[in-house]
Amino acid sequence: MQSGTDGKIQNLLNEGVSPVHMNTIVVGTLGLDDIETPFRKEKGVLGGSATYAGFAASFFCPVGIVSVMGKDFPKKYLSMLKKRNISLDGIETIGKTFRWAGKYEYTMNEAITVKTELNGLAHFKGNVPEKFQDAEYVFLANIDPSLQSKVLKQLKNPKLVIADTMNFWIKNKKKQLLEVMKNVDVMLMNDAEARMLFDTPSLVKAAKQALSMGPKYVIIKKGEHGSVMFSKNSHFAAPGYPLENVIDPTGAGDSFAGTLLGYISSTKDISNTNIRKAMVYGTAVASYNAEGLSLSKMKNITRKDIEWRVAELKNICCF
Amino acid sequence: MQSGTDGKIQNLLNEGVSPVHMNTIVVGTLGLDDIETPFRKEKGVLGGSATYAGFAASFFCPVGIVSVMGKDFPKKYLSMLKKRNISLDGIETIGKTFRWAGKYEYTMNEAITVKTELNGLAHFKGNVPEKFQDAEYVFLANIDPSLQSKVLKQLKNPKLVIADTMNFWIKNKKKQLLEVMKNVDVMLMNDAEARMLFDTPSLVKAAKQALSMGPKYVIIKKGEHGSVMFSKNSHFAAPGYPLENVIDPTGAGDSFAGTLLGYISSTKDISNTNIRKAMVYGTAVASYNAEGLSLSKMKNITRKDIEWRVAELKNICCF
Repeated sequence: MQSGTDGKIQNLLNEGVSPVHMNTIVVGTLGLDDIETPFRKEKGVLGGSATYAGFAASFFCPVGIVSVMGKDFPKKYLSMLKKRNISLDGIETIGKTFRWAGKYEYTMNEAITVKTELNGLAHFKGNVPEKFQDAEYVFLANIDPSLQSKVLKQLKNPKLVIADTMNFWIKNKKKQLLEVMKNVDVMLMNDAEARMLFDTPSLVKAAKQALSMGPKYVIIKKGEHGSVMFSKNSHFAAPGYPLENVIDPTGAGDSFAGTLLGYISSTKDISNTNIRKAMVYGTAVASYNAEGLSLSKMKNITRKDIEWRVAELKNICCF
Repeated sequence: MQSGTDGKIQNLLNEGVSPVHMNTIVVGTLGLDDIETPFRKEKGVLGGSATYAGFAASFFCPVGIVSVMGKDFPKKYLSMLKKRNISLDGIETIGKTFRWAGKYEYTMNEAITVKTELNGLAHFKGNVPEKFQDAEYVFLANIDPSLQSKVLKQLKNPKLVIADTMNFWIKNKKKQLLEVMKNVDVMLMNDAEARMLFDTPSLVKAAKQALSMGPKYVIIKKGEHGSVMFSKNSHFAAPGYPLENVIDPTGAGDSFAGTLLGYISSTKDISNTNIRKAMVYGTAVASYNAEGLSLSKMKNITRKDIEWRVAELKNICCF
């Protein structure tokens, strides 16, 4: 966390640091994204899984981020996160900031990675600060599964571990990913990843196999089609929120996951019923997120806006 | 209806014909299909939109089919339909039976037409027998929109008209299709068709445009992701039923539509609430249909099996 930290950034990171231990943490990336949709192109906007997930979780509870950034990471973004009651004490500063370039085709349902520059992220060790180590609610966003495992080993008494992954790790670190899944309560992936990981066209079969690895819940994200949750004895389908204008779906999955984490942490209830509710909250927050570039829409909504969409989603499911 | 009818088939068609007028009718195709999935290949199995939709409707009420078949159409299929309380009095016999060859790729979510042989269907005039003309509940399955319009003009007092279409007509007869939509209560299409018809990636925008053409309800079918219904002031999402083994999705959309028709006709309730319920029944019947080749699974289920899945779907949505 100390290596090569720029003085001014370090001041910002430490300023107003609370000695209070964090009960809810997100481990993932901070990044700068180049986004291309059929309707626009933007360069160097705020991104990263920990950014989206941390921001989303902060609607519900204080949250700490474990991540890495470069010396070039804009200070205004750090200020924005700090104002949200997000602890930055788990952020290391190494080299240059991670950059991701992605594009979306016509239906905007799937991100296609155009380019990845790991930069400082290549040196991220997944060290959890001591005061985060007794966190009970944890989201391991999409990073190298070996690092996800390393993070897990540092946690003293996690009550709920949610983990995400992506096609890159399924292809290149499948064994390590399956190892992580043994120690995870809720495993997230999208539908294409579920099919890829278990080599079956059937999401039901894929989910059953995933459950047999260890997680109590498997949640498959399906973009505009919503999400489905599988446990040993139950199945839940959360509808997608009917968005008229999708501007930028980047981070929708992480906003969903961050909300899941924050909502469950704030309610201290990890029952099946409450996970269903948390998924609907996640759908609502993710829908707002997709309505603006980067975090531009999400940062202007309130808890009341979220409750409004949750009520709409309730009606959307009702028969 | 008489042109070129083979004597034996005509006997079968007329045998036991009830003079009772039909209150519920399906207009569409009877056909023989060649099906190719990643897991099997079958030739000449029973197919056609009117077959699937009529069969599905017959779980709920008596139904009449308006269609055309060839002299080669196997008599065992006619017998099977008759046993279901399906009136065949609106079926013409002309030339050879319509044939469709289709295939499904890995996720089996979309049918790709490999070949179409119209045969007798090319001469189908959409004549509605007089005793069907006062039908109140009507499904116009996917046929030439000019024929759909012609059928509508013969109906004396329809209470609920449901219509379906496909990419072929959107591409080649868009104007006629938009004309049909003016006189339809419930317009069905799949997500790709909705995007194509209104040239937008947004299903919400597409649905709004469709509603502005006349229908009170637009239902967009999304295969394994379920279906969504739009009306001017409400939105409903029916989840997909989580199938472990999809054998043959052919006719799932028509089974869904036939159930919608039959359920609404049997309850005589065209309220928003009842249409939502009918969509869930449609999801249940369509899910059974996809579990067997052709109608093989659907013909072995009972109303009780359907109720069972409807109850499961209720739980799947519950939060």
